[in-house]
Amino acid sequence: MKTTGYAATDATVPLARFEFNRRDLRANDVSIEILYCGVCHSDLHQARNDWGFSTYPIVPGHEIVGRVTAVGKDVTRYKAGDAVAVGCIVDSCGRCDQCLKREEQLCREVVTQTYNGRDRITGEPTYGGYSKNIVVREEFVLSLPDGLDMARAAPLLCAGITTYSPLRTWNAGPGSRVGVIGLGGLGHMAVKLAVGLGADVTVISRSAGKTADALALGADRVLISTDEAAMAAAASSFDLIIDTIPVRHDVSPYMPLLDVDATLVIVGQLGLIEEQSTLPLLMGRRRLSGSPIGGIAETQEMLNFCARHNILPDCEMIAMQDINAAFERMERADVRYRFVIDMASLEAA
Amino acid sequence: MKTTGYAATDATVPLARFEFNRRDLRANDVSIEILYCGVCHSDLHQARNDWGFSTYPIVPGHEIVGRVTAVGKDVTRYKAGDAVAVGCIVDSCGRCDQCLKREEQLCREVVTQTYNGRDRITGEPTYGGYSKNIVVREEFVLSLPDGLDMARAAPLLCAGITTYSPLRTWNAGPGSRVGVIGLGGLGHMAVKLAVGLGADVTVISRSAGKTADALALGADRVLISTDEAAMAAAASSFDLIIDTIPVRHDVSPYMPLLDVDATLVIVGQLGLIEEQSTLPLLMGRRRLSGSPIGGIAETQEMLNFCARHNILPDCEMIAMQDINAAFERMERADVRYRFVIDMASLEAA
Repeated sequence: MKTTGYAATDATVPLARFEFNRRDLRANDVSIEILYCGVCHSDLHQARNDWGFSTYPIVPGHEIVGRVTAVGKDVTRYKAGDAVAVGCIVDSCGRCDQCLKREEQLCREVVTQTYNGRDRITGEPTYGGYSKNIVVREEFVLSLPDGLDMARAAPLLCAGITTYSPLRTWNAGPGSRVGVIGLGGLGHMAVKLAVGLGADVTVISRSAGKTADALALGADRVLISTDEAAMAAAASSFDLIIDTIPVRHDVSPYMPLLDVDATLVIVGQLGLIEEQSTLPLLMGRRRLSGSPIGGIAETQEMLNFCARHNILPDCEMIAMQDINAAFERMERADVRYRFVIDMASLEAA
Repeated sequence: MKTTGYAATDATVPLARFEFNRRDLRANDVSIEILYCGVCHSDLHQARNDWGFSTYPIVPGHEIVGRVTAVGKDVTRYKAGDAVAVGCIVDSCGRCDQCLKREEQLCREVVTQTYNGRDRITGEPTYGGYSKNIVVREEFVLSLPDGLDMARAAPLLCAGITTYSPLRTWNAGPGSRVGVIGLGGLGHMAVKLAVGLGADVTVISRSAGKTADALALGADRVLISTDEAAMAAAASSFDLIIDTIPVRHDVSPYMPLLDVDATLVIVGQLGLIEEQSTLPLLMGRRRLSGSPIGGIAETQEMLNFCARHNILPDCEMIAMQDINAAFERMERADVRYRFVIDMASLEAA
């Protein structure tokens, strides 16, 4: 099928209109008309080859919401017209222990990314959601629950699951004290989801400027990380901290905030963090970890949870043609809190 | 009571004979004649003020084995003649959640160290086990099980519990794959204890020179960390790694060895570690942590476990007068694997 999207053709040029083919439906494939696609910081990183493994052209986009237009002959779960979603991964080996545990994001043979990946059968490049259509293996298509606003649901597929998964892995719930560092696309979802799970939620921010926003999102309080007295008073007071900072940083100021056996989970940054002292680790048996998106079953659980609790990202809708300006604003953290592309705009282009 | 020991009177002079007083027995105190005392790397660090919080004079020593000579009127657990031991801590608040959980090493009000601490009642300095006698609150005295060689048992009180506690906290046992980095005082105990717990044990060493020693200690194999192919082949193959390296180092080469959700626990170093990438943390949900000694109940459990399984450190006995030479050899890692002072030597001095 011929389709239209926006692609980066190398690391230094803006994204531009790009015509390409989607594969013919295999027996277990679902064909989807994309209605909305969220704009993730990693879209920008991969468009610009910040991580060094981009293969061009790149059609970014892994926060995809749309409707089924056709299904392969063996597909049982979906039919034309269904509201569906696709996240960061579109295939995995299906045989390893992690896949069998439904933790496909940790597949031993490496998952197939929604874009900048390779189809496991043909080896052809995968292209993402900045486009009119996508074809995805049934097992990697999510069902969008009734009642979830389709336009605003898109960022759940990456920002949502990336924060939901560690909250669940580390058992956030009633009685647990959760801190969230950073209040961007990931951070604001971490707050909403942790609040939805019943946790006591503190936003940890460098300045008081985000206090009103944090409280509006449902946080119980804000801790200002540049206020030494407040930070000292908050020592050992968190069971879990979700660190959404997207750039190189120093976790040292935050580690003493963890209680005994508590964990700081990095979800926002791939790359080096600053040197740190082992003192908070040893003296409180504190833990530092990281977490990558989530499995397909957990992503579906998250979507159902959000529908049940009416949790949705705060979005700013943009046209496909505005993507380069949106990237620039995203780099300045000038978005509350996630751009979503209305794919209807692509037709008008 | 007047007693004799060896003390550092400032950071730059050798340890020398030192006469001082032990407190009169309180109602809940046990008076102990010290027979053996292990020599821990932290004795050297504190004698030389490497950590910046030494108060002189310092009588080091927190791997203490001896016999009860007298007890206070309320003491019920011990009587004169009992074989007992004292480790790194001699008191804690007794009221906080950690103390109530029997994790006194993590006391919210800071534990009282066996030496270079302050008595909680009088505020007087605490003096350690490089001496003929010590007086310790009953609750912090361990019972030395029958059948445990008193001379060799001493290093269990620090090196033993420091490695046993993380093995237990992270559930090492039959079927678990445990790595041990470093083969000194802590590392050789980690190997013996992990083997005793039924784990599959790999010593991770920079050179093949320690292979025979590692296998003799019971390790199943040695992984040479400078062998890139072997390290790559061992990726994601450990459930738990105990890192006993006592100096600043880089955990980056070791993190990819951890399986999904597995943990590297630092036990040997207080201070900075090198900058590291978040990639192994995020991509395998790996964890980095630390662990300090253990609680009194767990220390007793460890002593009983060692008696049951006939696990003892490999020791080199020295006279008290040899302590400065022993410090120098310890700095060169020239000891297999722990010096133990025979306190009978002090009388002869």
